Amino acid sequence: MTDDVTGLGAFFAPRSIAVIGASNDPGRIGGRPVDFCKAAGFDGPLYPVNPTRDEVQGLKAFPDVESIPGPVDLAVLAVPSARVPETLEACGRKGVRAVVVFSAGFSEVGAEGAAAQADMLEIAQRHGIRMLGPNCLGFYSAASGACGTFTTGLEGGMPARGKIGLITQSGAYGTHLLSMAKARRLGVAGWVSTGNEADVSVAECLEYMVESDEVGAIGLYMEGVNRVETLIRALARARELRKPVTIMKVGSSEVGARAVQSHTASLAGSDASFQAVIKQFGAVRAETTEEMFDVLYAATTGPLPRGDRLGILTVSGGAGVLMADAAEKHGLSVPPMPEASVGKLLERNPFASPRNPVDITAHALNDFDLIPEYLAEMMRAGDYDCYTAFFTSWTASPVLGPRLRKVLLETLAGQGKPFALIGLFDDEQAGAYEREGVLTFADPSRAVAALATMARVAQGFDRVATGALPDVGAPGIAVRSMGEAEAKARLAAAGVPVLPEGVAATADEAAEMAAEMGFPVVLKIVSPQIAHKTEVGGVALNLADADAVRAEAARMLAEIPAKVPGAEIEGVLVSPMAGEGVELIVGSQLDPVMGPMVMVGLGGVLAEVLKDVALARAPVTAEAAEGMLARLKGAAILDGVRGRPGVDRRAVAEVIARVSVLAAANAEGVESIEINPLLASAEGAVALDALILPRGEEA
Amino acid sequence: MTDDVTGLGAFFAPRSIAVIGASNDPGRIGGRPVDFCKAAGFDGPLYPVNPTRDEVQGLKAFPDVESIPGPVDLAVLAVPSARVPETLEACGRKGVRAVVVFSAGFSEVGAEGAAAQADMLEIAQRHGIRMLGPNCLGFYSAASGACGTFTTGLEGGMPARGKIGLITQSGAYGTHLLSMAKARRLGVAGWVSTGNEADVSVAECLEYMVESDEVGAIGLYMEGVNRVETLIRALARARELRKPVTIMKVGSSEVGARAVQSHTASLAGSDASFQAVIKQFGAVRAETTEEMFDVLYAATTGPLPRGDRLGILTVSGGAGVLMADAAEKHGLSVPPMPEASVGKLLERNPFASPRNPVDITAHALNDFDLIPEYLAEMMRAGDYDCYTAFFTSWTASPVLGPRLRKVLLETLAGQGKPFALIGLFDDEQAGAYEREGVLTFADPSRAVAALATMARVAQGFDRVATGALPDVGAPGIAVRSMGEAEAKARLAAAGVPVLPEGVAATADEAAEMAAEMGFPVVLKIVSPQIAHKTEVGGVALNLADADAVRAEAARMLAEIPAKVPGAEIEGVLVSPMAGEGVELIVGSQLDPVMGPMVMVGLGGVLAEVLKDVALARAPVTAEAAEGMLARLKGAAILDGVRGRPGVDRRAVAEVIARVSVLAAANAEGVESIEINPLLASAEGAVALDALILPRGEEA
Repeated sequence: MTDDVTGLGAFFAPRSIAVIGASNDPGRIGGRPVDFCKAAGFDGPLYPVNPTRDEVQGLKAFPDVESIPGPVDLAVLAVPSARVPETLEACGRKGVRAVVVFSAGFSEVGAEGAAAQADMLEIAQRHGIRMLGPNCLGFYSAASGACGTFTTGLEGGMPARGKIGLITQSGAYGTHLLSMAKARRLGVAGWVSTGNEADVSVAECLEYMVESDEVGAIGLYMEGVNRVETLIRALARARELRKPVTIMKVGSSEVGARAVQSHTASLAGSDASFQAVIKQFGAVRAETTEEMFDVLYAATTGPLPRGDRLGILTVSGGAGVLMADAAEKHGLSVPPMPEASVGKLLERNPFASPRNPVDITAHALNDFDLIPEYLAEMMRAGDYDCYTAFFTSWTASPVLGPRLRKVLLETLAGQGKPFALIGLFDDEQAGAYEREGVLTFADPSRAVAALATMARVAQGFDRVATGALPDVGAPGIAVRSMGEAEAKARLAAAGVPVLPEGVAATADEAAEMAAEMGFPVVLKIVSPQIAHKTEVGGVALNLADADAVRAEAARMLAEIPAKVPGAEIEGVLVSPMAGEGVELIVGSQLDPVMGPMVMVGLGGVLAEVLKDVALARAPVTAEAAEGMLARLKGAAILDGVRGRPGVDRRAVAEVIARVSVLAAANAEGVESIEINPLLASAEGAVALDALILPRGEEA
Repeated sequence: MTDDVTGLGAFFAPRSIAVIGASNDPGRIGGRPVDFCKAAGFDGPLYPVNPTRDEVQGLKAFPDVESIPGPVDLAVLAVPSARVPETLEACGRKGVRAVVVFSAGFSEVGAEGAAAQADMLEIAQRHGIRMLGPNCLGFYSAASGACGTFTTGLEGGMPARGKIGLITQSGAYGTHLLSMAKARRLGVAGWVSTGNEADVSVAECLEYMVESDEVGAIGLYMEGVNRVETLIRALARARELRKPVTIMKVGSSEVGARAVQSHTASLAGSDASFQAVIKQFGAVRAETTEEMFDVLYAATTGPLPRGDRLGILTVSGGAGVLMADAAEKHGLSVPPMPEASVGKLLERNPFASPRNPVDITAHALNDFDLIPEYLAEMMRAGDYDCYTAFFTSWTASPVLGPRLRKVLLETLAGQGKPFALIGLFDDEQAGAYEREGVLTFADPSRAVAALATMARVAQGFDRVATGALPDVGAPGIAVRSMGEAEAKARLAAAGVPVLPEGVAATADEAAEMAAEMGFPVVLKIVSPQIAHKTEVGGVALNLADADAVRAEAARMLAEIPAKVPGAEIEGVLVSPMAGEGVELIVGSQLDPVMGPMVMVGLGGVLAEVLKDVALARAPVTAEAAEGMLARLKGAAILDGVRGRPGVDRRAVAEVIARVSVLAAANAEGVESIEINPLLASAEGAVALDALILPRGEEA
């Protein structure tokens, strides 16, 4: 394909292939790779290895890999699992660069299999061989015709050639994907099933396909994430090359069921982290297989939109409204045509409703020129970023269909915007549009959804990181539990605003401190063992004078040790009563899979009950953190509700960015940082309480 | 079809049809009904009316409707709009029972057209003629072969016969629906496009199809709701007969854009009301056309599930997880198999993972009996309410496909549960399963979604109203604005709990009242012109003694008249300070389309910013109101969060029910009733503030 910067070229574009365990029967596992390579037109030497036959499927066979006369780039191992190690050794001696291992019975069946897999990997690595599998269905490359696979998805013919790359961990579901792609006439550039990923992972295959000129858009099916750093690097590179990546990752329901731990942990389960990371790096999550294929279809058929403004052309008012609804639901805007154009179009056809949706009405049947004229005016004066057009069954009519196609394609020529045509189509009718870059759909909602996803993809590509990470001073954090006072001091050193405060050991000392700060003040119990202070009576707000402070501090110091036996009480924290504002939670959490994640949510029920939080992989810039705030469902609260002033979003974003930098720098030692609440107002943001926990500890 | 209790039998099952304006050209509007009736096998007399021809499409033609020798049940009017009145008069003289009017140019084009439509309706009603249209595409009935339509959706052949009824306001989108149904091989019983609905409405057509034995499930496409009472009656009857109804209603984005008014109005926009009503009466909203067809397909192919427990059989672990994720997303549960069964199935195949999803793995290829054995055990011991089974491309394989079908159909025979098979199918393969009641899908997520919708439909059917409406005493409410004091008194008379309180005209009087009630107290300004008291400084909380009360009351009475010029100040309301609890908003609002709606939401940002409210058409019982509370996204808050006790849901539900009864009884005069907040605690619920507005007035 292209320069083999990823080292996987020996799989996808090998100069020669040996099939070890080759069968003369093209229906058997060892026979299929030979049969498929021939059918796909692999034009390098293809060497069947079979000690009992001179010829396999019309090709000269060899008793073992070392008897093959020429060099072997790729060996496909269709042998029982017990014979894999000796076969790998032989491949190593032969100088094979890459192997595909179909055999099952390795890490997927338990500890013994995992040990066998580790041994196998050791052999491969000792010989410098890259390995796909074990327990995989292999791969298919349209450009080279290399088919190191026994998937039934290639039975009955290769898929149409095209720009779609498919990467899957599951063999069986991967076969289903390949079969569905064929049934939908989608053009496929390559397909790979990674199985146990002893060596080659989904992330590396993604990296290869991102760099390949043959591939225009990539669909991933994943069950777990190995090599998260490679995955992120590949996604970042895809964004740079503006190559759409859509990911279907299953297992969210299991993850969702995991036991709830501290606030942050309960809010940032790893499916949410995964979701946040792929969004952050410009990929899109597909929830269903059809959605994934719609994205791949749109991405490899037409251009990407440059914005989110949708122009809707229709001959049915109802369909126009339906598409406007769908646009709002999926986040596309439907701005009206300029007034001058509306007037002009109404003059041309008084029955039309030409605002946007632009409804020509069925009058277009009597006056076909209305179609190109209206469309041209939409493109000229509306200048939308993408278009849908509804012509119902006209598209399939023997008389109207070709006329419609002619005027649409002529009018669209060279305009470079995505255009989805909704109607009824047979394969030939659809193909005639698709070859010209026009998408075809029967369901208008699905057309709008696909365009909206494309707009989101383009937005993700445009969202390059701006600004710099904040300077937090020395980033290291001591690896120990830090309660409120110590945690706030540490955060303050990193530039997070906190209120002046002090820890008093006695009630009298508390009263004295309060008098110095000025009333009213707040008292809070200080103990590393007590995370939720309110629940043990460890918070007293709005204390107006020294007597009140003394009484409350005395009560806390007396009562709480009895309520929480074993808690080390370090004293009471005295701080000025904060003003009015909006409470937020800002925190970080080490995700076991995705690494350090930073989180923000609105305080109270929004974060806790409704799980309205925004996540990103740490570190993030303040600019990116502002984007996180905008994604909160309750973001309007930050702008002020019921007469309250809005908060300084930038100040909140600065805090998020600083926490994220600390979290990323301390991913080895720190499990979580939590500011709860962060009080935000028009004047800024201040951390009122905080907690830092070392790795492995939970609040 | 069946007994014509709805009076529309003359359309769908006429004994004779006249086509007025019949054309000899089967492609023209006046030619198509004749051509279609012949193609669909209409077996009563078919009379083309055309003054210029003796014969039309091989049938004897008549110069006018009155020249037809026999009686005419249905006349199809394919005449210019100007000729409709005289043609209707002639139909009246002839004794025609029903007419279809295709002609456009009536109410859809403005006031003049609306007047012409009213004249036309007057003629029809004077003659006792039922009228479909004008500006409609007519209808199709498979059972009678009557085709009073010129839709291109019937070109190229009638749809397959089946149990689906389609009702649409839009002609063009209705044609698209019919064409999509044909492309999907769905079986259609009837189709009708209602256009301007001068007489016959979508609601009446629904009522007809609900009563018809020919129709098993009904899809509606709507843009607006006429005759809401008929619609509700028809939905209630469909629920009684357990006939699934799925509704696609467009226009939500426009409705959403309507200007925000008072809290309740802004929360209870009419799309939300529509959504609430159809859910309340057991129908399901389809968001997309494909979703609507999936529901209709599932409802007319297999049985309805009796619960929400999904059993998942798979040969791919990944597909199993994917379906479990989809089940959680769509609200189906995936309970595990009993431990004893798990052991038994593992013994049979140690590679299997037989909990649920029950993953047989690809070992089923080597041991085909695993499939029926595992499935039978799932049905016996798991006894799920519905099933999905993933067999990828095996279904389409020439060898495996028929074997698989044999074992599946044998094992499923007579078990009466919905079963969705996921794989790849050509039309013949799919048909062979569907004829036996098995659903087929390529996308596993879509299969799960369809089963989940069926489960929701069945649940809706089961949710018959229990309990009685509360007794609110004399239900009438005086038609005038009522501010806090008067509104609370009126609600108290209807059994809604309120705190003791009084209105003081002066500061001294307020202090005196407070002293009688006991401190602390709350003061609020009383003025019919002031809805949001906090914003004008009209609320003072937690006043601890007589001096504080006197000072605050004096301030309000002095300051507020200056802030709100023209406000009539009736005094200050004095009431005891309420205890701790959860604040809710309970209210009613007259929806311009759906009538009196009752609403409940959690106070504060949840209702206002996140629009987390539950709606129902008034009146509702307390039992139904408890269901509304359960639907709130923040419902967990009612159970107590962070150590707070849960609230008495029944007490809240009682208040909702009482407000709903008042709202329904006063739909002529009362625009809205609002209790904000209703304070709920473990001890009960009490209205702290309220407002009642007469029709046409907004807060």
